[in-house]
Amino acid sequence: MKTMGLSRLLLVNPKHFPDDQALARAAGAESLLVTAEVCTSVDAALADCVFACAISARQRNLGPPPLPARLAAAEILARADEGEVALLFGNETAGLSNAEVQRCQRTVFIPANPEYTSLNLAAAVQLLCYELRLAAFDGHPPVLSKTVPFASPPASHQDVQRFFEHLERVMVSSGFLDPRRPRRLLPKLRRLFGRAELECDEINILRGLLDAVERQVAGKRRMASGTSDTVDNSGS
Amino acid sequence: MKTMGLSRLLLVNPKHFPDDQALARAAGAESLLVTAEVCTSVDAALADCVFACAISARQRNLGPPPLPARLAAAEILARADEGEVALLFGNETAGLSNAEVQRCQRTVFIPANPEYTSLNLAAAVQLLCYELRLAAFDGHPPVLSKTVPFASPPASHQDVQRFFEHLERVMVSSGFLDPRRPRRLLPKLRRLFGRAELECDEINILRGLLDAVERQVAGKRRMASGTSDTVDNSGS
Repeated sequence: MKTMGLSRLLLVNPKHFPDDQALARAAGAESLLVTAEVCTSVDAALADCVFACAISARQRNLGPPPLPARLAAAEILARADEGEVALLFGNETAGLSNAEVQRCQRTVFIPANPEYTSLNLAAAVQLLCYELRLAAFDGHPPVLSKTVPFASPPASHQDVQRFFEHLERVMVSSGFLDPRRPRRLLPKLRRLFGRAELECDEINILRGLLDAVERQVAGKRRMASGTSDTVDNSGS
Repeated sequence: MKTMGLSRLLLVNPKHFPDDQALARAAGAESLLVTAEVCTSVDAALADCVFACAISARQRNLGPPPLPARLAAAEILARADEGEVALLFGNETAGLSNAEVQRCQRTVFIPANPEYTSLNLAAAVQLLCYELRLAAFDGHPPVLSKTVPFASPPASHQDVQRFFEHLERVMVSSGFLDPRRPRRLLPKLRRLFGRAELECDEINILRGLLDAVERQVAGKRRMASGTSDTVDNSGS
């Protein structure tokens, strides 16, 4: 409940309450247990509600209309404008009785694998609370860090173009690209780096690498043209 | 996993496997554990994958792009056309390392309450599997009983109209409705029963009740008009 921003918990005839084991397992969400209200009947728990949903995998013969979890979350939120609303869960072993389900306005089910529908109580509660949170924020609840930290800002179009020009120069000078027979090499590399959405730092790293390659290529050329040139360079 | 129709589980260096306690807790989903594959590294587990998502509440500095669970489910399904896809979860205590997250193409987060984002592993797995199932069936996965069993078939328009005529007759004959001053009573009752979407059986019950009331009203009229009539009636 707390992970999804819910805070009001009502317990109907709990076997043990307060319970040390429950508190220990709450792991940071103790506030919910401490403020939980204990009721002596489902009717007492739902007394102030204008809209209650029974969570049940089974449709009951004279039960309220069924609704899958996602649609139910939207309806619950809409009805919350009118007054208190509730999700009613049965206990782990017995679930809800027909009489309890019939006290609600909807039967809410989680669309599970028809061959194995058995979600445990904690899983069902988590899913419903999650759907409520997403519905409450129209699919986009606030997150801890709203903007994703780019390792560095995205590169500008101009920076990317300069990188491609640099890359092409090196491809040609290294003999990898024959300008008379380009074989679509450049468009393919443009596609790759375009998809990657390069950042400034990455452009710097790539151009640094291209610079280093260019120096090597130039050095080799000088070596090939005469040794004195190379000796001068290394000594300077 | 089984509740949401998933079947392939890979375990990286499990502490105990096979494990009797895990089997006991699987409660009907043992097949998943029995067919689980054990891997010696995350790389081995992801070897055949073309797309892998790391589930993590924390964004990592040089991690892959983040995506909320619902959008991730849609993308995972789309990529499943191209080859194997995977959801990578860390263990309950330590989660995933940066190195593990960086082996994936996306960082998937569950949009939880920023003040308390701590979902346990089982809850996170359940939510992701649920989102995958809903995405796989375009929001409408098949359910156990596709059509909800009406207690009886819905009433026809004509049956409903006859009920309203009957109701109006009784309201007038009982003195509750003054036809010269109707005070919008009928439209209000039409609205109520219209919302309820009456079934055949319910129409029969309501009209049976109206019949009974009519007989009472007629009886009282006869009583009021003269005793001999009443005596005759009771004696016949």
